[in-house]
Formats: sequence, C-alpha cells, structure tokens
Amino acid sequence: MLFVRKVPRTLAKIYIQNKQNMPNRRNFLKSSALAGAALTVPAAAAAAPDAPAVLKNARKSKINVGIIGSGFRGQSHIDLLLRRDDCEVTAVADIDARMLDYTRKIFAKAGKPQPKYYTDGEQDYRNLLQQPGLDAVMIATPWRFHTEQAVAAMRAGIYVGTEVCGAFSIDECWQLVNTQEETGTQLFFLENVCYRRDVMAIMNMVKKGMFGELLHLEGGYQHDLRHVKFNDGKEAYGGGVEFGEKTFHEAKWRTQHSLRRNGDLYPTHGLGPVAQMLDIHRGNRFVSLTSMASNARGLHEYIVNHPQGGENHPNAKLRWALGDKVTTMIKCANGESVVLHHDTNLPRPYSLGFRVQGTKGIWMDVNKSLLIEGLTEDHKWTPAQEFLDKYEHPAWQKNAEKAVGAGHGGMDWFLVDDFVECVKAGKKATIDVYDAAAWLAVTPLSEASIAQGSAAVAFPDFTRGRWI
Amino acid sequence: MLFVRKVPRTLAKIYIQNKQNMPNRRNFLKSSALAGAALTVPAAAAAAPDAPAVLKNARKSKINVGIIGSGFRGQSHIDLLLRRDDCEVTAVADIDARMLDYTRKIFAKAGKPQPKYYTDGEQDYRNLLQQPGLDAVMIATPWRFHTEQAVAAMRAGIYVGTEVCGAFSIDECWQLVNTQEETGTQLFFLENVCYRRDVMAIMNMVKKGMFGELLHLEGGYQHDLRHVKFNDGKEAYGGGVEFGEKTFHEAKWRTQHSLRRNGDLYPTHGLGPVAQMLDIHRGNRFVSLTSMASNARGLHEYIVNHPQGGENHPNAKLRWALGDKVTTMIKCANGESVVLHHDTNLPRPYSLGFRVQGTKGIWMDVNKSLLIEGLTEDHKWTPAQEFLDKYEHPAWQKNAEKAVGAGHGGMDWFLVDDFVECVKAGKKATIDVYDAAAWLAVTPLSEASIAQGSAAVAFPDFTRGRWI
Repeated sequence: MLFVRKVPRTLAKIYIQNKQNMPNRRNFLKSSALAGAALTVPAAAAAAPDAPAVLKNARKSKINVGIIGSGFRGQSHIDLLLRRDDCEVTAVADIDARMLDYTRKIFAKAGKPQPKYYTDGEQDYRNLLQQPGLDAVMIATPWRFHTEQAVAAMRAGIYVGTEVCGAFSIDECWQLVNTQEETGTQLFFLENVCYRRDVMAIMNMVKKGMFGELLHLEGGYQHDLRHVKFNDGKEAYGGGVEFGEKTFHEAKWRTQHSLRRNGDLYPTHGLGPVAQMLDIHRGNRFVSLTSMASNARGLHEYIVNHPQGGENHPNAKLRWALGDKVTTMIKCANGESVVLHHDTNLPRPYSLGFRVQGTKGIWMDVNKSLLIEGLTEDHKWTPAQEFLDKYEHPAWQKNAEKAVGAGHGGMDWFLVDDFVECVKAGKKATIDVYDAAAWLAVTPLSEASIAQGSAAVAFPDFTRGRWI
Repeated sequence: MLFVRKVPRTLAKIYIQNKQNMPNRRNFLKSSALAGAALTVPAAAAAAPDAPAVLKNARKSKINVGIIGSGFRGQSHIDLLLRRDDCEVTAVADIDARMLDYTRKIFAKAGKPQPKYYTDGEQDYRNLLQQPGLDAVMIATPWRFHTEQAVAAMRAGIYVGTEVCGAFSIDECWQLVNTQEETGTQLFFLENVCYRRDVMAIMNMVKKGMFGELLHLEGGYQHDLRHVKFNDGKEAYGGGVEFGEKTFHEAKWRTQHSLRRNGDLYPTHGLGPVAQMLDIHRGNRFVSLTSMASNARGLHEYIVNHPQGGENHPNAKLRWALGDKVTTMIKCANGESVVLHHDTNLPRPYSLGFRVQGTKGIWMDVNKSLLIEGLTEDHKWTPAQEFLDKYEHPAWQKNAEKAVGAGHGGMDWFLVDDFVECVKAGKKATIDVYDAAAWLAVTPLSEASIAQGSAAVAFPDFTRGRWI
C-alpha cells in the first residue's frame, strides 16, 4: 500500500485538486468483476467519414496490449487494463528506471505476469511493435514522441491509442492522417474528457435537441500546473523550482514547452467534447482560428517566490515564452463560434471552463448551472445536477459502478473500456485520426496566430472534403 | 403608486432579472435625506491624461441640470436628481408624448416645479442648450443621437454626461475627443457598471495589489433582451414581436441595430470596469482587437415561436445581422489580454461575465468566487462575498445606505452622485472623453474585424500619446 499512497498513479495530472478521487483498491477490485461489457460510445461519434464500421480483423474476446511510455499516465492505463479479464498487457517500453520500477510493481500487485520490457533507448519501442501477438498499443510518452510512435504502430498494423497533447506542426497532423489512410490501421485518440460524466450528460441533452441549435461553445484547460512544471527531482509534484533532465515526471520534459512556445499547448481536453457536440467531421468542421496571449509572468513569479528558488536562482533568469492566459476563438463551417482557454501558469482553481449555448439554453460548468427555456426559470441560473442526473448518458447509466475509483472522476475507466472494446470488435476508433488531427492542429495554428498579432489562420481540412 | 408599479423607471434595462431591486419609495425617501456627500471616485480614475484637476468654472453648491431624452433611462436620472438638495432639473427635451407624460408625473410626485420642456422635434434639444443657467446636461436618447448632442452641449459650454452605447464610426469617437479638446468642456461617460458594488470592491483589491500583476480580464453584456427588442406597442417589455416606429420604448429604435449590424453593439458595461482596472489611458491603452460572431438565430426563433408571431408573421421573414454571441479579444499596450462577451438574443441568465486574473489570484462573477494565493485554499474556488465585504470600496462604505433602492442594485446612485459632484466642483470627469472614445470604439472595430473574418484591427490612440 505504500506504493499506492506515494504515487497516485491513475491521477498523475489532476491529482492535486482531485484527491478525493484517488484510486480505492477495494472499490476497484469489487468493480473489476463486472468489467467487460461494451461501452455505449459518445453519441456524436456515431458516424465518422468514410470508413467501414467494422474493420477487417476478426472480433476477439481477449486482446494483448502493449504500452509505450509507462510514466504515471501509462501506469494508469496498465492499472485499468490489468483489472479486466478481456486483455493482457504483454509489452511495455520505457527508459526511466524509476517509472519502470513502479510499473513492475503494478503487475506484481495485480498478480499478473510481467510483460516483456523494452528499455534500450528511445527507439526500442520499434522492437516492441514487432512482438508477436500484439493487438493494440497505447502511447503515453512525452508529447514529442506521439506522432513518430503512432505512425510506426500504424505501419506495423497495430491498433493504436495515443494520448493527448498539442501538435508541433500541421505536417505532423497530416502524417497521422496519411498513415492511417495508407495502412488502414486505426488510431484512437485517448481524450478522456469526452467521457466525463457531466460532459456526456450534456452531450446527451445536446443530441436530444434540448439546447436547440448550438451557437457558441467554450472549453479549455485551466489548471495551475506550477507544481507539475517544477519539482525537486525527487517528488513528482512541487518541492522545488527545477525542471529538465535532472527532475522527475512531467517537469522533465513538459516545462520546456512553456519556455519556448507561445500558443494553446494543450487544447484537446476542452476541444474534444466541444467538437463532438458540434458534429465536427460529421457535417461540420473547424474553419479558422485566432489566438491571443497575455504576458508570461506566472512561472517567473513562482520561481522567484519559492523557498527553493529566489531572485538569484538560475531559473529566475529565464524568459518564458508561454503567455499565462492564451485565448483562442474558432469559427466552424456551420457558423458556430468556439472559445478555448489555456491557463496553466497562475494560481487558480481547476476548471475546464465549459459553456454550451444554443437557441434554447445554456450550460456552464464553472457555476454548475444551466438554463433551458421552458424547463427552468427565465433569466435565472438553475443548478445543473438535476438535469445531469435525469439525462445521464446511457454509458454512465450502465457502467458508473464499474468506474468508481478510476482516474479523473471515473472517466478514465470509460476511455480505456471504449478503447478495448473497439480493438476487440475491430471497430473504427470512436475518436479517430481526423478528430486527432483537427484537435491537435490547434496548437501550431494558435502559435502562428499569436506570432502574427492574432491574425486569423485557416484550418486544413484533414478529411479532404469528407466531413460534408 | 400605480405609476411606480407600471413603469420600473430606474430599472429600464435589467428590470427583468433584478425585480428584487425595484425602487422602493420608502427607502428612497429615507435615504435621500442623507444625500449630497461627495463620492470617492473609482480608484483607477484618479489621474487621466493631461487636464487640470479642477476646471475653470467656480465651485457651486447647487446646479441646474437639463435632461436630453427622458425615456426610462432619463426618468431614472431625473428621479435620482430630484431627490437631492444640490440640484434642480430645469430643462427636459423629448419628443415621445407618453414618456413626457411619465416625466411630468415624476416632477409632480416629487413636489418639484416642472422644468421647461423642449418637445418640438429631434433638434429642439439645441434650444434647451441655450436655456440660461444650465450647469450640466445628461443625454439619454437613442444611441444615434449621443455624439451629435454631446458635441453640441460641449460647444454650448455645458458639462455633459452621456449615456452608454457603442459608436457607429471611429470618426464619431474623434469628434467627441476633438470637441472636448477644442472647447475645454468636460464630457462624463455615464457607465454605471463602474460603480457596481462587487466591481468596486474588486477594483479596490486590484489597486491594493491583491491580484498581483493583472494578466487577463473578461467582461461583457450577456442579457436576454428579446423582451426588450420586441413588444406589442403598448407595454415596454414583451407581449409581442413588433419593433420600430409602431412600438414603445427601446424596441422602437434599438432592435434596428440587431437587424443591420454585426459586432459588439454594447461593449461598455463589460469594458468600463476592466479598463479602469487596467489603467487604460493612465499608463496603458487598448492596442488591437479581433472579434468573432456566431450565427444569428435567436431573434428569428423568438418571432417564430411567440404566440403573437409565427412563421407567417412578416418579421419572421427578416434576416438578422447580429450574431447571437459576439466575442472580442483585446490586446493592451502593457500586454494584458481582455475578452468581451456580447450575447443578447438568446434565452440565458443575466451575467456580465467578469473575470479578473493576475499573478496572485482570480475572481469570476458568474460563480461569485475567487482564489487569492496565500489567503484562500489552493486550487479551490472560495466564495467571494467575505472579500467583497472586507475590501468594500470606500465610496460604498460611506454611501451604501443612500443608494438603497436606486437602480441596478444601487450603482445608479453612485453614478449620478459622482456626476453631480464633478459638475459642482468643476472637476474633470471621472470617466472622461478619452475613456468614452476608446470604449465606444469597440463597436465599429468589432464590426470591421468580423467583416474581415476576425482580422486583427488596431485601436486609434485617442489620447495622442498622452496615455503614456
């Protein structure tokens, strides 16, 4: 149990504000006996462009999964996979000794055989992809490896799930699309917020027409990551103002992006649910965006004011590129507007800042309230919970019990379950390569817009017209 | 009392959601005995560019005020002025018989002599400006008259207060600035939200440095105005889907703007407080903006679904220009970003959507919560009320009792009080012509940006460099 207490492995990213959701082994064991039933996928994802609903590979009742990158996020996936009776984790690639040690302990704890490990440098994952019998891989490495590894996995014919980030270039997004189309191998973009309980209930209400025609949506990533971007090299979160090679976990690589890049570096938690509600690539698409960044002050202030930092600390001399608040407006082909918030350097509460607004009503998550014309009082906010309960998405109605204790309020259970069921059935990914490309593209496009003084920048049509 | 019940005169604009704040005659009478003490003006407004703090005209203990436009907003001002012992309302110009009737009743009710009325057409206000002994005028006419009338008042040497709106052109903003500079006559921009109790408390906290260096602010005008934009020609609000000449109150003229224009038509309620917090024209300025509009659906839906409307109603054939949600991002010279929301055609709760965010904390009004690093719990929203009480602005500390029952939660009392005190003292306007020009300019600039696909558009520097 020491390990469980020390490393909140299923909650690497938002563990700070979500301590109450830390995995509870007892609940997990209880619920894992029920696991395996198919997830009803998000309603919006029903019909993506132009791919067979069931792929060539035969339906399987049990699959072998490989993990590329077994940091805390990869460990969370391993943990959820090992609790199921319909999959085995037979291969793991990572190069961090401490993370590998944690990983081995998860297998030991679960009473499962250790997988084959690929630890011989950054390219050893290519050998993992050659391991016989692998049905799928999940990629949870630092951002810069995602595309290279996903492309290699698709070329190896292995169903690939790839973790969220933002792209570095538009070319990279095209690489994903082109490789998927060339190989026919599916890519499932592992955006867990699309499975959040309130988000799926609202999606259900959207698809029932309760908000009328959608007009304006907002979302984002607003999370004080200063404890994540800096640590002392020992603990994963906080305790110092160091980052880079000598540190541990995300500070090792993620912080560099804040030093060098100015844009929405992490768009998909906010954009994914919004895109599904807006039927992006199912009759709609993102047409253009414009972004604006505030000054970059938060990380410098954090270093200067930290007990382990101070004005004379070497990191206090750095000039950070990333504006503390980056705001992006996106225009859709069907006329809707979207606002995306990115805000990770300042003291603030966690909030993805969702807003869903149509001709018949509005929901916001920051005040957990809504107004639906004719159903709630005019001109007043009504607490949303009653509606979230009443219109709970069928997937959550069916499986909420199983998700108890899983990461990020349970949504990670739904994400992994959906991925596994898609792989088993040989089905098209619920969140596919076109979704991935368009959502990831926000990062380089927002960088371009900011670099040009908030110029409007066009989105490529990654579906080549098939969104229509 | 019938009149008071039928016409919520001090609450014409937001009476629907604010019924609890409707004027209470008993409170008013009680508090009016205390009226007259000088208002401590918003902290941010202390030092505007390059004008003498006290103007040439001698200090007066009592002033004569003229009202140009005595619709509901003008009547609200008259009502507040007549309750004071330091001013008389000696002139009123309007052309609407029903509004003039209401106006006469306010004077009768207050036991005050009727003013001289100027009712002979739209240009009769020019004769009002020649009336001997006038110290100030307040302009509360439809938007298109504001600049023409303010310019004429300044040319007549009369201290002018002018109501909020958005400009039609940048030239119009320059006209205000140029006339003020040529004549030396003050223009006070009557933006009441700068006097809102929570806004002034937050401003107080901002000026004490409690939010650290400001980085990102939001505000706006988010108010379901469908009942305001349409009526039945009898009542002021709702009851039909008519607008234009045959209707009453704002539907008579305001609705035309939604039909023909696409931009942030009403920017100053949100922008005024934000500008004061950001020291705009006191060392900072707005540099550029970009705007995006959603589809325009709300007003058409309202007409089609209204019992007095329907698909065959002539107004159901109209194509509305104004996007239901218009979002504007503004970049400041000192690097801060601002987001402005405009949202008046949809079913929604009233919310100006304020957000004030700096290196040390964040406040939002939609959830009435804040986080101040070191003073509140990390990563959590804390209810703001305790801080709003503790850091109440000195003006509200001193005069809150007097404002009980005044329009818009009491803030109108502070607005009118500040205006009257500035006129009496011959002081520079708290919210001056440069503020007015920059805030009003958002409307034509946002129209231009939207027309160019959300292009970034530059703000003129109305201070000609003196903001520095």
